[in-house]
Formats: sequence, structure tokens, C-alpha cells
Amino acid sequence: MNYAEESLKKHYEWRGKIEVVCRAPIATREELSLAYTPGVAQPCLEIQKDVNKSYDLTRRANLVAVVTDGTAVLGLGDIGPEAGMPVMEGKCALFKTFADVDAFPICVRSKNVDEIVETVALIAGSFGGINLEDISAPRCFEIERKLKRRCDIPIFHDDQHGTAVVTSAALINALKLTGRKFSEISIVLNGAGAAGVAIIKQLIALGARDIVACDRKGIIYRGDETLNDSKRELANLTNTQDKRGSLADAMRGADVFIGVSAPGCVTPEMVRSMAKNPLLFPMANPTPEIMPDLAREAGAAIIGTGRSDFPNQINNVLAFPGIFRGALDVRASDINEEMKIAAAYAIAGCVTGEMLAPDCIIPSALDKSVAAKVAAAVSQAARNSGVARI
Amino acid sequence: MNYAEESLKKHYEWRGKIEVVCRAPIATREELSLAYTPGVAQPCLEIQKDVNKSYDLTRRANLVAVVTDGTAVLGLGDIGPEAGMPVMEGKCALFKTFADVDAFPICVRSKNVDEIVETVALIAGSFGGINLEDISAPRCFEIERKLKRRCDIPIFHDDQHGTAVVTSAALINALKLTGRKFSEISIVLNGAGAAGVAIIKQLIALGARDIVACDRKGIIYRGDETLNDSKRELANLTNTQDKRGSLADAMRGADVFIGVSAPGCVTPEMVRSMAKNPLLFPMANPTPEIMPDLAREAGAAIIGTGRSDFPNQINNVLAFPGIFRGALDVRASDINEEMKIAAAYAIAGCVTGEMLAPDCIIPSALDKSVAAKVAAAVSQAARNSGVARI
Repeated sequence: MNYAEESLKKHYEWRGKIEVVCRAPIATREELSLAYTPGVAQPCLEIQKDVNKSYDLTRRANLVAVVTDGTAVLGLGDIGPEAGMPVMEGKCALFKTFADVDAFPICVRSKNVDEIVETVALIAGSFGGINLEDISAPRCFEIERKLKRRCDIPIFHDDQHGTAVVTSAALINALKLTGRKFSEISIVLNGAGAAGVAIIKQLIALGARDIVACDRKGIIYRGDETLNDSKRELANLTNTQDKRGSLADAMRGADVFIGVSAPGCVTPEMVRSMAKNPLLFPMANPTPEIMPDLAREAGAAIIGTGRSDFPNQINNVLAFPGIFRGALDVRASDINEEMKIAAAYAIAGCVTGEMLAPDCIIPSALDKSVAAKVAAAVSQAARNSGVARI
Repeated sequence: MNYAEESLKKHYEWRGKIEVVCRAPIATREELSLAYTPGVAQPCLEIQKDVNKSYDLTRRANLVAVVTDGTAVLGLGDIGPEAGMPVMEGKCALFKTFADVDAFPICVRSKNVDEIVETVALIAGSFGGINLEDISAPRCFEIERKLKRRCDIPIFHDDQHGTAVVTSAALINALKLTGRKFSEISIVLNGAGAAGVAIIKQLIALGARDIVACDRKGIIYRGDETLNDSKRELANLTNTQDKRGSLADAMRGADVFIGVSAPGCVTPEMVRSMAKNPLLFPMANPTPEIMPDLAREAGAAIIGTGRSDFPNQINNVLAFPGIFRGALDVRASDINEEMKIAAAYAIAGCVTGEMLAPDCIIPSALDKSVAAKVAAAVSQAARNSGVARI
């Protein structure tokens, strides 16, 4: 199937992948008086007395904004806020389909960090959570950090944390299958953008100690004065042995390769130089850092990509619907590290016993039972970590 | 029925009067690839090439934001953005029920005119129109004016223009029934807030020449240095005979009274002082400026109020759904004076022939055939006045 052509045709037919419908009947005079004036004054007054009642008396408790500025849409780059909207609507469609979360897309016509923060903060009272989407690095880090400080609802940049959670889930099961532990393995991550930074932080939270991060110029190391803030932070978190060199140098002897970078930058030779039974997650989309068949021939024990036409698809849809479902269910004020780790283990836990195999380390992106399990684990982690409000 | 109590109970049951649902099927791998990656890249690229394609390929063409800052909610006043949300959701429910317009409520956590303008302008690319709601005067005038300048989609403050359109419709039919013309009658309007200012401007556009506006201090006249900007504008538009005095002074000999003011400020004596067969529209809610039975006893020929339990309910729901439906249908860049006048005549035209009577000058608020007629007239007026884009 020509997905581009067929998708365009479908989009013309759909005229929007989401729709705002009415839950209250308005056919009689009485119904009008209950849903609108004069009756509606009473719920308004209840919320005025206690703003938390907005979660009980409006849609807020089930409502997430999917916010973009259109600067890093898919692999397309900075295509503008309106052009990002089909992706945002798609995300909203996934939220509803997989976790019954109402999600509404907002595209912001600004690339200025503070303008975006101000805009989102000022409309945050309409929502129970904010999912940031397809905002370019390093701006996305600052926007997320500032919004977390300003808002009392969860702020979650899916390109960072969703990717980190699902990658972690895959790695948890891959390590289980090959009898290894986070604390003992060496990991090379290529691509120090939004996803890369978040994956590294989450792997450290999971117990990883030996991580080397690379960007286009090779291994990232402490003291490189040309690094921007987020890469400097990364340098301080990784490469404890102070290695220097290329991606090929980094991969020599490593147990795990994680790619959130560019097509074809990993060669079979580089895979052969890794430790025995290496685990490879070349997740560049649509073309991975190395194609799975080449990686397999070069000795990879387990391979996961971003693609649906190969085994082990690392797809964020396994994470974000359940994570927000779990956060909304307990009215969490934040989505914190504990909740993300709980989500990763919950996703990994969906593949157990005999199901767990090198070509099946992660559930199918279409498995609608995953979100509920993730939600339950995330709600519990929110309670345990003190961010649950009900 | 105790509307307050029953409405509160219903709101707890509804948990939101609107819901965001999914229009695209996502059950198979193929469907996922069409609604989301990789297929969704193509509609994104089409919009990047031509931003107008966002109307064809996303929900934008049918989508209106209902925006408030919570400063003038119903008769409750400044109760805050979150507390205004039940009204905004109710408005959205009416949009969908009466005109199949998707409407989404946004409450803005600011009372600063420029902050509100900036916020709405920056998210305007997500919508096909903006309905401003329950924003206090005179801030609402400035917010609307600035947004109209910034945005290329219709900006419509319903408390002003919706009220003006429906009041005009009622007056059109009341004049018809009593054999009078706009150019010949004298009108007194009490209450120089958002609705009052808009009603006066629309009546002038309809041909009215003799209008006297009053506020709490009495007749508004040119040269009063204590007037704010919007009242000064009003002074320049009205009271050509430079009258001074109280509301009672103004009403003496007048043909029409329009009240968007306070309960009980009109006495039977004041009605008796008016011209023969006076028309009264005491629209203060929930308690009118004078109760209909008292006005009738004092000689009123036709009476319209804001209430559903009396004849001739002046209800905005007759206007805004059809107005936005008509604007969206031709992708109008604005909702201008011509479109509002067309809407008023279309509403008036719903009551014709033998139906038209002193107790039936305006269709029922629940009449779902009205919006389509209003929409057709508004679309045509948009085309005629050059703001239609398709």
C-alpha cells in the first residue's frame, strides 16, 4: 500500500480525526435549563468555592491537551504549527482509542520558549494534563521545565519520556532474556536530542552505570566547550571513563546500542565489534540506523526498531495513553520518575513466560490491554510518591 | 423543579458536558499507519505547502473555541476561569446540538487584556473561529477589537453580538406587528455594558435614528467627562436631542424599551408614560427589569424577556450556532455587520404569517430548524460582503 497517498485520501474523507460531541441531552426546555441557564449557575458556584471541583463538574478530569509548535514534527522537522496538526489529531485519536482519554490538539503559533510557556500555562486550567509533542530540542527541555514549575497538572513531553519508557521496557525484557543486569552492561546511545537525553536519564534511574552518548561529532565528553546546555548535562551523566572518538570507537565491546539518530549510521562491522550477544535498538524512523537483517547477520541477539513491519516495535503508543490514564485516575500533580519507571516495568510485564522471546520482547502496539496495566502501575506509583491527589 | 440542585446532580453524573471522540478507526496495523505514522506525514506536508489545507485535512473547518476569562459569568460576575467552565461547556453543547459545530472550551487564567489577546491569537491556528464568552466590559471590547486585527478567523463576542442579533430579530417582528419602522421609532436602552453597546450599534445599522441609552446614573449624554471609552462612544452614537435626566425621563414618550440592566428598575408608571402600544424587552436575568404581567397591565403591546417561562424568550441560542455554522461553511475570515443583520432577519423570518402574534414574535429556543436558516443567510451575507473564502 502507498501509505502517503492512501492516508491523504483518508484525511480528506475524515475531515478531522477527532470530534467534540455533547454528553448532555438538550431537547426539552427542562434539559436546556439543567445543562445551561439557569441551572448551570450552581456547578459554577461550587467550583468558585473549591476549584478542585472542576475535576468533578467539568470534563477536566479526563482531558489532556496535546500541544505543539510544529518545530520537530515526525521526521519532517520544522513544518509549522498548522502543518503539525494531523499528527496532533492522530495522537488524540490514539489517546481516546487506547485509554479513553479525551485529548484535544492545540498548535501554538510561536517558536519562542517563554511565549509558548505563557500560552500553555494560561490555558492549563481547562485541562487535567498537558502532553507536549514534536517540539524541537533543546527548546523542549526548557519549555517542559518551566511549565512543570508553573502548572499544577502533569506536563509530559512524549518525544522524550514516552520514548524513554518504551525503550526501557524493551531493554528490561531483552536483559532478562540474555541474563544481564542494568548495573553490569555497557550502553551506547547515538543521538543526543530530546529522546536520547530522556532515555539516558531513565536508564540511569533503572540502574545503568556505563553509558556513552554520541552525537554527530562522536562521543560526548566532559569539558567539551562546544556543547550546549543539555549535552553538557549529558556529558556529566555519562562516559565515566572519559572516552573519546567516533561512534564506532564507542560501540567496540558495548552490550547495547540505542539509536535515536540517523538512517544507516551503524555498519555490520560496528555490530561485530560489540560484546557477545549484543542488543540493538536502531530506532531512527522510517529507516533505522542499521536494518534488522544486517544486524542479525552481524551477530545481534535481539533487535528492536521503530517500525511496525519488523518484530519488537518500540512504539510510544504503548506508553502515553496508559501513563496519562493512570495520572488522571488519581488526579496526579505530576508525572514523575517513579511513575515512568512503573510504566516501563508494566509494559515489560505484558510479555511473560513462554511469550517472551528474542522476537517478542514488547507487546504489540495494537494490544489494547496494555494501557490499563500501565495505568494501574502508574496510579500506584503516583500514590507511593506522593503526587496523587485523590 | 429546583434547577440549582438538579443541575448540580446532573453535572456530577455527566462528568463533563462535552467529550472528544475519535473519527478515524485504529484497530489494525494498517489503520494505525494511515491515521498516524508513517501515513500522516503526507497530510502534514500538504498543509506545509498550503496552510489553507488545514481546513480540509484537520477538524479546523468545523471547530470553534469558546473562550472566557471567567470575569462576567452569567449573572454571577467574576468567579474565575475554572468556575466559568460549566457555562463554556454548556455553550459547546449547544453549538453541537443546534448546528453540528464542534466547540471546545478554553478558560484563560488572566484578566489582562493583552495576555488574553496574545494567548488566543497564538492558539488561533487550531480553530476555524473564536467565540468570546462572559468577559467583562469594557475589557471585552478591547479584546475583541485586538483579536479581530490579529486573527484571520471570525472573532465573535456572543454576549454582545448574539444578544444584539436576537434582540433585533424580536424587534423586527414586533415593529412589523405594530406597523412601525426602525427609522420612525424612539428607543430607550438601559444598561450600557457589553450587550447594550452591541444592541445599539446593530439597531443603528438596522435604521434606528432615535436611541437614548441609560446607565445607573441615568441618560448618557455627550460631553460627560466621567464616561469611559465605550460609553463615550455610545454618547456619540445616541441621544441626538441631548436629553438629560433619569431612566424615567428617558422613557417618557418612547416606543421601545430594551433592558440589559437590573431587576425591577422599571415601574408600571414608567411604562404608562411611554408612547401608545409600547414594546418592552426587559431582559435582565433571571429577574427582568419589570415582570411581564405588570408591563402588560400598564399597557405594553408586546413583551419579550430572557426567560423561558414567559412568551418571546430572547435567547442567544437562536443566533450563535447558526451564525458560526454559516461562517464556517464559507470559511469566512470575519463575522461582520452584514452577517449579523442577515442573521437577525433570518431569525425573524422563522415566524411568519398567522404564527406571528404579540406572544410569538420569535421562534422557540428549542426549534432546531432555526440554525440552518440562519446559517444559509449568514453564508450568503459573507459572500456578498467579500469575507467568504470558499
